Parts: sequence; structure tokens; C-alpha cells
Amino acid sequence: MIKVGIVGATGYTGVELLRLLAPRKDVSLQVITSRELQGTAVADLFPNLRGHVDLAFSAPDSDELFGCDVVFYATPHAVAMKTVPALLATGVRIIDLSADYRLRDQKLWEKWYNVAHESPELLGDAVYGLPEVNRAKIAGASLLAVPGCYPTAIQLGFLPLLEQGLIETGSLIADAKSGVSGAGRKAAVGSLLSEASESLHAYGVAGHRHLPEICQGLNTYAGESVKLTFIPHLTPMIRGIHATLYAPLRAGKSGVDLQKVFEDRYRNEPFVDVLPKGQFPATRNVRGANHCQIAVCYLEQNNMVVVLSVIDNLVKGASGQAVQNMNIMFGLDETEGLGSIALLP
Amino acid sequence: MIKVGIVGATGYTGVELLRLLAPRKDVSLQVITSRELQGTAVADLFPNLRGHVDLAFSAPDSDELFGCDVVFYATPHAVAMKTVPALLATGVRIIDLSADYRLRDQKLWEKWYNVAHESPELLGDAVYGLPEVNRAKIAGASLLAVPGCYPTAIQLGFLPLLEQGLIETGSLIADAKSGVSGAGRKAAVGSLLSEASESLHAYGVAGHRHLPEICQGLNTYAGESVKLTFIPHLTPMIRGIHATLYAPLRAGKSGVDLQKVFEDRYRNEPFVDVLPKGQFPATRNVRGANHCQIAVCYLEQNNMVVVLSVIDNLVKGASGQAVQNMNIMFGLDETEGLGSIALLP
Amino acid sequence: MIKVGIVGATGYTGVELLRLLAPRKDVSLQVITSRELQGTAVADLFPNLRGHVDLAFSAPDSDELFGCDVVFYATPHAVAMKTVPALLATGVRIIDLSADYRLRDQKLWEKWYNVAHESPELLGDAVYGLPEVNRAKIAGASLLAVPGCYPTAIQLGFLPLLEQGLIETGSLIADAKSGVSGAGRKAAVGSLLSEASESLHAYGVAGHRHLPEICQGLNTYAGESVKLTFIPHLTPMIRGIHATLYAPLRAGKSGVDLQKVFEDRYRNEPFVDVLPKGQFPATRNVRGANHCQIAVCYLEQNNMVVVLSVIDNLVKGASGQAVQNMNIMFGLDETEGLGSIALLP
Amino acid sequence: MIKVGIVGATGYTGVELLRLLAPRKDVSLQVITSRELQGTAVADLFPNLRGHVDLAFSAPDSDELFGCDVVFYATPHAVAMKTVPALLATGVRIIDLSADYRLRDQKLWEKWYNVAHESPELLGDAVYGLPEVNRAKIAGASLLAVPGCYPTAIQLGFLPLLEQGLIETGSLIADAKSGVSGAGRKAAVGSLLSEASESLHAYGVAGHRHLPEICQGLNTYAGESVKLTFIPHLTPMIRGIHATLYAPLRAGKSGVDLQKVFEDRYRNEPFVDVLPKGQFPATRNVRGANHCQIAVCYLEQNNMVVVLSVIDNLVKGASGQAVQNMNIMFGLDETEGLGSIALLP
Repeated sequence: MIKVGIVGATGYTGVELLRLLAPRKDVSLQVITSRELQGTAVADLFPNLRGHVDLAFSAPDSDELFGCDVVFYATPHAVAMKTVPALLATGVRIIDLSADYRLRDQKLWEKWYNVAHESPELLGDAVYGLPEVNRAKIAGASLLAVPGCYPTAIQLGFLPLLEQGLIETGSLIADAKSGVSGAGRKAAVGSLLSEASESLHAYGVAGHRHLPEICQGLNTYAGESVKLTFIPHLTPMIRGIHATLYAPLRAGKSGVDLQKVFEDRYRNEPFVDVLPKGQFPATRNVRGANHCQIAVCYLEQNNMVVVLSVIDNLVKGASGQAVQNMNIMFGLDETEGLGSIALLP
Repeated sequence: MIKVGIVGATGYTGVELLRLLAPRKDVSLQVITSRELQGTAVADLFPNLRGHVDLAFSAPDSDELFGCDVVFYATPHAVAMKTVPALLATGVRIIDLSADYRLRDQKLWEKWYNVAHESPELLGDAVYGLPEVNRAKIAGASLLAVPGCYPTAIQLGFLPLLEQGLIETGSLIADAKSGVSGAGRKAAVGSLLSEASESLHAYGVAGHRHLPEICQGLNTYAGESVKLTFIPHLTPMIRGIHATLYAPLRAGKSGVDLQKVFEDRYRNEPFVDVLPKGQFPATRNVRGANHCQIAVCYLEQNNMVVVLSVIDNLVKGASGQAVQNMNIMFGLDETEGLGSIALLP
Repeated sequence: MIKVGIVGATGYTGVELLRLLAPRKDVSLQVITSRELQGTAVADLFPNLRGHVDLAFSAPDSDELFGCDVVFYATPHAVAMKTVPALLATGVRIIDLSADYRLRDQKLWEKWYNVAHESPELLGDAVYGLPEVNRAKIAGASLLAVPGCYPTAIQLGFLPLLEQGLIETGSLIADAKSGVSGAGRKAAVGSLLSEASESLHAYGVAGHRHLPEICQGLNTYAGESVKLTFIPHLTPMIRGIHATLYAPLRAGKSGVDLQKVFEDRYRNEPFVDVLPKGQFPATRNVRGANHCQIAVCYLEQNNMVVVLSVIDNLVKGASGQAVQNMNIMFGLDETEGLGSIALLP
Repeated sequence: MIKVGIVGATGYTGVELLRLLAPRKDVSLQVITSRELQGTAVADLFPNLRGHVDLAFSAPDSDELFGCDVVFYATPHAVAMKTVPALLATGVRIIDLSADYRLRDQKLWEKWYNVAHESPELLGDAVYGLPEVNRAKIAGASLLAVPGCYPTAIQLGFLPLLEQGLIETGSLIADAKSGVSGAGRKAAVGSLLSEASESLHAYGVAGHRHLPEICQGLNTYAGESVKLTFIPHLTPMIRGIHATLYAPLRAGKSGVDLQKVFEDRYRNEPFVDVLPKGQFPATRNVRGANHCQIAVCYLEQNNMVVVLSVIDNLVKGASGQAVQNMNIMFGLDETEGLGSIALLP
């Protein structure tokens, strides 16, 4: 029985963690914290949890966190960095869904998040929780940084191509489309149904916080420094990310069977599904599921490789991936509790 | 040329007023105020107005308001009541889209709005701006209270039945469904796309602020005190109200041709469209238009009259009706500037 | 291991059955039929099932159906009635999600479905699969008729009131709002996103096929013939039914604690959740889950009882309820395979 | 008074034409045809037109077409090509919203549309109706081909860059996102709300019919043959196209002020609005309006030019542009009847 605590579970990654963890018989929810709502029943905030979660929110500094085997942080950035060191020091393992430990470079982090990091000494120890590249390290991790939603969809899409040196790395393009839940459960005019429904727009054109995280990964897989143009778009749906990736094929690689490259790379991955040639993914195929669906095409006339990669931003892009990491960290079947099928329609 | 001012035009009724007024050649927009955004170009807040509205927001106490022929208030409740008296005193006519002058009974108003009314002496003078019942008074009004969105849809639906004494008034039911824009352009978690999309729920079951306003009207038309059960629902769309009204037919009235009653009542109304027998309205039929579409049915087996009434909450339910009232007040063609056709699909 | 066949699994109740059954270790999917798509992989039609369902569609008269323990019919009406008798005769148990065996009265069925019933002799044997009223009969059923979506939401809402004789039965009103998936996965202009999105309208005002089914149930619970006005509405969401029910309280019953009546009635029901006083249900609270959430209010001034009842039309309103029935029929834990939590947001 | 006929007005471009033309005092709607619905009142099919359009649908070969000054074709492809020659021969001017006369190259057309062209002799005479490049020719046109929706958004986005030789033309990318109305008012499973809502996917990855039309334009503006990778996506909204365009800046052009290039190019265009630096377009800004909103950015680090271009696919992408062309052809103010403001929210 794994004793679990969750810090800051009033947002969408929080309720999604609870949806995935509450039914499990090998997990015991010990404590769920919230600064504003302590004392409120969790199921009063999230009525889908009625009958499944009996806890009330505790104070964020609850001592019960120290009695947990693992504590998830489902907080905004710059929160985990304050209290993670104390928990780690007593042997509690940490799975941080926020951005606090995703970048290895402190200066880069501070530049993009515009605040001083309060536990930079941990940046080197934190393991980046993308199981498809880091499975072995994850197993032994004390401090795990769960990748962001865009970074997951985009890295999984480019990964096989970069590892095999198949594409030019000087002009990578990631045109990404996200559902509104990516903005979190925060009262903001731009996320109102009346604003975001029946509309679509790009944002963060000049630079989005996920860019350095994506590049950190892509540089590693490529073994060189890539140039990525990343344009995220807000789309009128709740869940889902669709990343459309473009890169010129490298000279001399036109004979390579890209479909096979992807299938080989992900053959043993339980949560990455390379679609058969000619099929294209849709975000609804993975709604509520921990899967990434990927298709790859080569447009010969333009010498352009196009990759389509979809995830549910709250599952494989956040809480599902967090649970997948927990399973690996605790030596469980990696798919435990993640077997439910996407809700379609 | 009518000189127009708008107080508080940062919400949805504000931008809708501007959409309707800006193209008019007989209207001159003089001043648009906002407490928070003074100095900001109106078109920077509402990019659909680029090229149509060149003004920037002024301070809410701008002197220019006093130079207007008419000032619209597109403010939350309890704002207009503070500054309307001074404007009225200098001869400026007022069209208030908020609730401040809709109820004749001060105590009732203060009970539902939970604040002391600051210009209660005007409640008796204010004209309730439902042209289909008050056209003559509107023409001479100095202070006009624009009806609420639910009250418009529901009153227009019950009106012919009550005027003719055709229904039992002891158990009226109004089951109303509204788009999310009815909640305004206000950052609120419940109005987020991720909360309100793909869901539907009732609210205000124990009592909604529009109830006394609706009953004030229905009582008048019926010539007696009615009992109305009014349950509003939030539905996952931006615009539109669909009111489904139920009332038992009065004994002895089964021979009455209800279709004809409605057609006769609204024959000369430019903005109330009684559908042919067997057709039912949909909110999209009136999206962006100032029309109310109505159907009436009699379910003989149950002796039940059912009325279906739809409007666009921001047009006939707010800004369009306000402009219709302005047209009447200034002796213009009542349909001036309101002739555009609903956007379908 | 229960051997399961599904007839006609190309619609939304079909894919939903597969979502619920595929992950189960105590169920073996033997055969899935489709007239048009035989030979096609099921997961090619429904990509959410990739990796979960390996079968291809078989012909509708596949012999393998006779080797099943239970066969689900996820067909339009007037299909099951043709082939169910032969399967029943060989001892295969039937769970019919269509309307073919829901009404006990053949003439009534033929009037509403406008076709001659081809196995009317079974109407008397068929068990109406609403576990909350028929659990014992369901356990022994050979032929089970799964209730419709509207009938489930509405019957569960009125049930406690009618059983206790608390409401006037002469003017019941059910104002129901449904997501578009209730219309099925059928190419129809009215169900297009461009038609049904951003709009809301009533339909079937003169009479909907679910009306006799609902009344058959309500009459039984009331012990008398009720009069129900039932107005369904199409709303711009995929899943969910919200039934808003109205009935006058019976004279002399004003002292009854309605909240307690509902809580008592459903205390032991695993899938009916009576909300605490003052909370109201939303369809998203049960999206993807087999739960019905209910709230009851008494509006004293109007002597009106209002019940709000929500389900996911494809789960408790169809495939989830079918699985619940299967669990009961085969002596399993009634909640087996139905424990997953609603997807929110 | 311009006498107007419309062939095939039962789809979305048809109803949109009627929305724009019906209120005009200088236009007389003479005849509206439909093969399936002749005899049906147009307003029965499109209830938003009640009170605005009194005509019924005529047979597609109605003689009245020959009495018109101009006939719009709002038909699927391969329809106009059959009957346009006869109308042209009698002096009726033609505005074809379909694809029949958009390509100058007959073979290319037949390859992409997979049918023999029946009036290829007209391909050379037809004028491509993009006013921003062809205004003079449009004025004198007898046969006008209205550009497709994707081609309009994409060409207007690339136009200033190609005319000035500012970008590399060997790896242009157009990642385009469209609302579902682009698929027309045709019963198709993929366009159902239950399929297309809450989801997003690419389609036509291997080649979309708009590709040769777009390239025909881009090649002309560039004065050389460009290579364009064009990936369209279906997004969960009714209206709107958002094109995100990528191209490397040409060597030696880094000093060019791209913002100024766009502003200069479109300064006198009434329907192309270059946003101020730092503002990005959203499709809702132009919903129901004939405007194209454009933003241009240069990402120096990647040497990448990014252009964001939005239109309403049914207005500037179809019927609004058709009306704009009609205005030019008949010597009217180009903006006549196109002055209404986008519906926001």
C-alpha cells in the first residue's frame, strides 16, 4: 500500500490525479492540501469524486505529508521549490507536476519563470519523468519532474527522428493546439466559455515557457543544439493537445522507412501508439486515457517530414504521466491504474 | 444626429451596444467609460470593433456624458442608481440596461439586490422598456429600464395567454436555458470553458433575481397575482435563451385557437415572430438578431399549454432591446439599425 | 468467464459497451457484428479501442452468437425483435439496449414505433432493466430490456415521490435536456456540429417515443395513471441528460422531509446519488460514469416540488446500465467494471 | 437595382449569401434554386431568414436565371461547369463560389477533382476573385471564380512577403485550422457534433484540393515556383479559419521592417486589417464579418517569419468575398452591404 499525499489539489491536474488514484487498491490517499479550501470536503469541490474520495482538504503544511511514501505537487510553479527539500530530507519521494524541477539550468529557469529558484541544488538530482527516454532513472528517482503537456506531445513526436539523425535540426517547427484546460482552473477572462468557445488563436508567439523545456529534451536526443519554432494555439475544447511537427528530411535519408522507425522505437511502449500508415490521430481518441497517438508522413515533393502527435493534456500531459512515473518508481506494473479506455464520443 | 454616451462598456452588453450603434449614420458615439480601462482604446479590448470605433475609454465621471442626448448604462446593478439622477437633472435621457430601475417596489428591489437603493424616488418614473407592452410610455420616457434577458423571453411567451385569461395562473412554470454570456464578461470559475462546456445544470433554484421582475410583469398582464416557478439552467453555448413555459389551460377555453391568439397579438410587432404551427424555435435562429421567436402548443390529453420562446440574450435580451427603445424614444423607425439577419450557422 | 456477443456495435452505445467490457478480466468478447462493416477491425472504426479490442466486425447472423452466454443488442429499434427468439431458444441470454421489448403493450409499441412487432410473445417475459425497481427480476431474466436514456433519468427522479404518494399525478412535467449523442452515430443534418452547436431547441413536443415507456413506469410506481407532459430539448454537448421535473405537492404532505425520502429510497443504491441539500447536479459530474445524481427541492410558496436528475445518456442511460444488468443477471458484484470516476473537466 | 439569382442555395454559403444580400436595397433577389427542395420556402429551411426572404426554391434550370444581371453558384464542384456557359452566352454575369473555374490549368483541375471539366474553354477567361490582387480584372469580369476559404487566408498571409521577395520559397508551411462549417451542410458522420466537438485532427495530409489553388496564387506573387506544405485541421467550432504560416527569411533581408511591409501593402484594403505589433488575431474577431486579420512576427533566433491570418470561412472565405466581388463588378462601393461588425462574443 503506497501512502500518497497531494499538495494543491484544487486544480485540474489535482482532480485528475484523484480520478486515477482513488479507485486503486494499492494506493492510500493520506492527505490532500489546499491553502484556500482547508476543511472543505474534496468531493464538494469536485462532485465527480463523491463516493470515491472522503477526505477534506488539509493545510498545505500538514504534518501528514511527512508520513507519505510519495507526495505529488499539483501546484503552480514556484511553490514546490519551497517545501520539497524538507520532505525529501525525511525520505518522502516527490512527483512534481509543476515546472519547478524540469530544467537543469537554473539561470534558464529563472529567466523564463522570472523568480529566484529556492532549491536550485536539487535541479541536478531531479529526474525528468518521460518514461520513454528515462525509464531506468525514474525507477530510482527521489525527485521526479513530470514533463509539461506540450513538451510531452512534441518530444515524443520528434524523438525517433532526432535519435536516428533523420531530420535537419535547424528549422524545426511545432505548431501545437491545446484545449482550454491547459490554462488551469483559474478565473481568467480569456478562458471563459464566452471568450474561448467558437474561436481559435495563437498565443505566446514570442516565446512560451515550455520552449526551453522542449529544447532541453530535443537537444539531448539530437546530440546537438536544435532550432525550434514553437507556436501554441488555444482551441475551443476542454482537453487535448495536437502537435503538428515539421522538419526537412536530411540529405541521403530519403530511403528510410519512417513508419518503421517510429514503430520500432515505440514497439514496447505501453502508452505510445504509432498509427498504421494512412491513419491520423484525433485528440478525442485519447480523451481521458494516458496514450499518445502518433502518425508520421513524408511529403516527398517538399522533402518535408510531418509528424502528428496527440495526447490528453491532463493525462499523458500531466496526471496520467505522473501516475505512470509513480508506478515505475515503486516497482509496480507501469500500466497499473491507467488501463481505462478513452471516452469516445 | 443622436449624441450617445455609454457608461461601463467593458462587458458583453457594452460591446453589443457598440456593434449595433457604431455603423449608424444617425448616431454619434461621444463617450464610452470604464473605471479600470480609461485611456485604453475600445478596439484594443474588443478587436471586432477595429475600424468601427475609434474612441478610448473615458473616466466614469466624464463631463462629456452631460453633453449627450442619451446615456446607456451597461453596468452591473447598483451602479446606475448613483449617477443617473444628476444626468437626468440636466435633461440627458437614460437607458439603463442594469436592474436598477426595473422594479417599482423599492423594498422588493432591496431584498433581492441586497443593497439600499440610492435613487428610489426615480422608481416610479422609470419606464419598463418592453416595447410590446409599453410602446407609448417608452416614447416619452426620460429614464428607461431595459428588461432582463429571462424576463423578456418569459414575458413575451406568457403575455398573450395572460392578457386573454386563457391559463391557470396558480402553477405557471418557466424552465429557462441560457448561454454562458448571460453571466457576463467576468472572470469566474463557473463560467470557464472547462467548467461550463460539455455540461448543463440548473442554478438559482431557490430564487433568481429575475423572478420578481418577471412576476411584476405577469401580474400586470394577468390582472391578478400569479404563481411562477422559474428554474434557470446554464447551457454550453455563448448566446441564446430558450424558455419553455407550461401552464394548464383554463376550464372552458379548450375551443380557443391559441395559434391565432399569438399571431393576432404579435402581428404588428417587428421583433416578435410567431412560428407557423408545427415549427419550433431554436436559439440559433435569432443569434445576433433582435427577434423573439415563439411557438405555442396545446397538449390536449394533459390540458397543458406549452410555449417555446427564444431570444439572443445579448440582443433582444439586452442591447438590441435597448436600441429598440432608443429608436422609440427619439421618434425614429423602431427597427433602425436592427435589421441585420441572425448568423446561421 | 462470461462469453459476450454484441449485435450492431457501430453506434455510440456499441462503442460504449466495448469501453466498459473490454478491460474486464471476467468477460470474453466473442463476436461483434455489423451489417455494413463486416471484416473491418473494430478499432479502425473506434480508434480509442486500439490495443483493447482486437476483433473485426462479423456478419450479423454469425453462428458465434449462439456460443455466447449473453448477447447485447446495440441496434436501432425493430432489429432485435427479429433474431432474439432464435438466440433465446438456445439458452443465450439477451440484453437489448433498443426499444423492442421495453413496452408490455404490443399495440402501444406498434403505434409509437410504426411497425408490426415480430416477436410480441416475448413482451410479457422481458424484464425492464431498471435495477432500482426490478433488481430481483433482473437476476432471473433471460430477456432484458434496457431502459431508454430519458426514461432512466425521469423515472429515477419521480420514483420516490410516486411510491410515497407525495405529489399530484395529474400534471407532471418533465423538461429534459439531452446531449447530441442521444441521436446516435447517424449522418443527419440536424446533428451536425454546425447545426447543433451554439443552439438549443425543443423537439418531439407533440409526442416522443420515450413517453409511453416513461408513463408505463410512472403508472406502476404511482399505482394509478399519471399525466405527464414531457418536452425533450437538444443541447449543444455530446453527452448528458438533465431532467428537470415539476409536480405539485399533494395536500397534507407539506410536513414531509423530501430530502430524507430520497435519501432513504436510494441509500443502498450504488449508482443513485442524492446530493446534499442545496447542491444541484451538473451533467459533467457523471460524464462517463454510471451514476445518476439527484436533487430535490420544495418551493413552498408555489407548493411545487422540483427534482433535478442527471445521467450520462450513454452510460446509466444505456451501456452502463446494460452492464449493471449483466452483473446482476450473472450473480456478480453489481458494480463490477463500473467503478471508474466521471471525467471532470 | 441588381437582379440576382442563386443556384444551389441550400448549403452554408447559400444561406450566408442570402444573409448578406437580403437586406440590401440595391439588390433584388429574383430566383433561388435547389434540386431537392423546389417549392419549399427558403425561410422554412433557414429560419433566420423569416421576414427577410419570401422566395421559395425554384428548379435548378429555372428560366428566371436568364433574366438576372448576375447569378451566384453556391453549388458543390462540377455543377457550375455544366450550366454556366449558357448563362454567360446570354450576358448574365457569373460569380461561382465553387471550385470549377479557380484553376487555369485544366489538367491540374481534372486531376484534383477527378472528373472531366465540361467547359474548359472558360478557364482562361475566368477571373480569380481575390480583390487584393485582381481588383481591376474583377471589375470587368463576366465569369468570376471566388477563391476557396483556405486559399484566401493563406494567400493574403504570404502575399506581401512573396511580392517583396522576402522569404525562402522552398519550404513554405501553412498549418491551417478550420471550423466545421467548411465541410458544408452535408450529412456526414465526421461532421456530427458528437464526432467533431471536443476533438481536433489533421486531414488531407497527403494532399488537399485547395493546395493547387493556393500554389497557383503563390507562384504568381513570387514569380517562381514555390514549395508549400499545407496541413489543414478540423477544429471544434462552426466558423473560422486560422492559418499559421512559416517561412525562413531570405538572406540579407533581416533589416526589413515586416510590420511596415504588411501595413503598406494593405493600407488601402477595406477588408484586410494588419494588427498592431504584439497583437494576434483570433477567429472570433471576424465572425460574421468580411475581414481578414493578419499579424506578422520575425523570430530572429530561428530566422523564421511567422504570419497569423484569420477569416470567417463563410464570409471573406466565401459569400462575403463573393459579394465584395459583385460590388466591384457592378461599380458599387466595394464595402456595400459588408459593413456589419463581427459578432463578439
